[in-house]
Amino acid sequence: MISEQKIKMALQCPMPKLDFDIITLGHGSGGLLTNRLLDSGVFELLKNDLLDERHDGAIFNVEAGRMAFSTDSYVISPIFFPGGNIGELAVNGTVNDLAMCGARAKHLSLAFILEEGLTMREFWEVLVGIKYAAEQAGVQIVTGDTKVVERGKGDKIFINTSGVGMLHPRAHISKSRVQPGDKILISGHIATHGMAIMSVRQGLEFETTLLSDTTNLNHTVMGLLDVFGDHIHLLHDPTRGGVATVLNELARDTRLGINLLERGIPVLDEVAGACELLGLDPLYVANEGIFIAVVAAAAADSVLEFLQADTNGSAASIIGEVTAEHPRQVLLHSKIGGKRVVNMPVGEQLPRIC
Amino acid sequence: MISEQKIKMALQCPMPKLDFDIITLGHGSGGLLTNRLLDSGVFELLKNDLLDERHDGAIFNVEAGRMAFSTDSYVISPIFFPGGNIGELAVNGTVNDLAMCGARAKHLSLAFILEEGLTMREFWEVLVGIKYAAEQAGVQIVTGDTKVVERGKGDKIFINTSGVGMLHPRAHISKSRVQPGDKILISGHIATHGMAIMSVRQGLEFETTLLSDTTNLNHTVMGLLDVFGDHIHLLHDPTRGGVATVLNELARDTRLGINLLERGIPVLDEVAGACELLGLDPLYVANEGIFIAVVAAAAADSVLEFLQADTNGSAASIIGEVTAEHPRQVLLHSKIGGKRVVNMPVGEQLPRIC
Repeated sequence: MISEQKIKMALQCPMPKLDFDIITLGHGSGGLLTNRLLDSGVFELLKNDLLDERHDGAIFNVEAGRMAFSTDSYVISPIFFPGGNIGELAVNGTVNDLAMCGARAKHLSLAFILEEGLTMREFWEVLVGIKYAAEQAGVQIVTGDTKVVERGKGDKIFINTSGVGMLHPRAHISKSRVQPGDKILISGHIATHGMAIMSVRQGLEFETTLLSDTTNLNHTVMGLLDVFGDHIHLLHDPTRGGVATVLNELARDTRLGINLLERGIPVLDEVAGACELLGLDPLYVANEGIFIAVVAAAAADSVLEFLQADTNGSAASIIGEVTAEHPRQVLLHSKIGGKRVVNMPVGEQLPRIC
Repeated sequence: MISEQKIKMALQCPMPKLDFDIITLGHGSGGLLTNRLLDSGVFELLKNDLLDERHDGAIFNVEAGRMAFSTDSYVISPIFFPGGNIGELAVNGTVNDLAMCGARAKHLSLAFILEEGLTMREFWEVLVGIKYAAEQAGVQIVTGDTKVVERGKGDKIFINTSGVGMLHPRAHISKSRVQPGDKILISGHIATHGMAIMSVRQGLEFETTLLSDTTNLNHTVMGLLDVFGDHIHLLHDPTRGGVATVLNELARDTRLGINLLERGIPVLDEVAGACELLGLDPLYVANEGIFIAVVAAAAADSVLEFLQADTNGSAASIIGEVTAEHPRQVLLHSKIGGKRVVNMPVGEQLPRIC
């Protein structure tokens, strides 16, 4: 379901009338055409005091404290997909990476690499997605960059966002805090984003269209830290490589083992069906709008309850626990009572998923 | 001349022996191959406490104050050029953008978009360039990202760097501070970087090889602010679009005029010659290792003297002044006594120069 706010914003931000409808190399020159592109409505759309300065960087006041800083480039293909577009993904992705550090994203940078021939209509739709996602997350785009490369040297649009934000005062998130007995929670259905992209790429038709769950997680995470503070030992969003990769990295870096309970892992029926059809294991499929929390055992049930009451956590579930046994290994306990090792994937099931 | 330190670093950082020599899509999967790529020596090469955490973002303490935040993507072609490579450029570029805000860059992010088929040898050389430039500038790479796109969907390597740093306590740099009578200084020869790239692309042979002047400017700028503080009204590095673009933007945004003295503009003879040969105006050619300073008239001679005593400023010169006459217009006073309007360039003389 596309949210009403998203539709409303698209209606409120129609593309301005322009005397060009295709991005050309000149739009990346830094000269008149670049200025014309940015003044065509781009700056107006993303408007805020810091961006309006149009200097080489943004300048803002910071309080003393702990800051988080994160970056990601987004190369997803196709750039428009059910449930979102590359612009929303680029904002949500960096907001969420900061949230996983325990920080509330505040200022974002935005850098485009456009391929010559991109239509202004496509670019505008991505920009509106950026504005929408930024407003939902409560962040500002404060500085940016636009480059254009020749046709065939890029792929429509690549976006880098970087972001900074201050740590929640009660955040104490680190792999070093993970210990045997900790419970592993997931905030929602796994593999939804990856299968939504896959269904478009493969031209699969399901009874219901699978939508990417891309969204910001910062409000949810800040709420969690308000209440549970340092009972939250680790947060991680299982994007590329999926849940299996994140848990394997955790096991490797902490030198602890992980028991994963198959019956606890939430997967939408249509996602499970699509995975089966394509021979994919949902544990390895990329996610967007969910996160894994490793929490103190004593707090696990309360954290679960808290998450389930949140918009982004209605399908939250306890999916496993950390153990001192079988160090560095992730063991899946299947629904029918079997056990198998979940390895880190070698290569790529689904390239360019984010 | 390639600096001795650069040669020394290249010798100290030989490429490790690897069981692969080509970047494949799997290296961007987030899985085992990504880990293998990063553990192949990449993390070791750029090693520091913050990067070693390998979380979704870097966390560091900040003091209360004014922070600058800047981003740029680098798409220069070719990625290796006389005097540097895309890695050095990516570090220096963002360090310099922060310097132009009056900030000392401290923490940088580093995001790669690699094209499938890039050789590990090329990637390694770029990485060593990054390490070299970061050490010279005194900054740390604290967080990063690596994506891989299919052959023909990128061009060897695109790099985004973003960076943060605190403002110099005496910095008070803003277009709003520029006023009639202010002097305009340039720190070095113009058009050198652009013509160095152009000479490679066009296969031109000169008697001496033109080298890009890519370098960090933060030490020079911090020194300048130490001594002259708020006499420095504005700083700008004339990269894409060259000196003409920066001055036109300045005239437009301040609604003031600019008088530019041709005889004051430093251009290397071989650069002037190459420009003539190719029919290019050096005022529009991209620069890297130089900056423009708009300073209070009373301080201009002392600033010039200061710059000329600095490694990066030996060719510094006063190139013009701000005037209330002919608002929004940049007027060039030629060596032979003529006057002409210097317009903002429309498109691109030299695409993908940074």
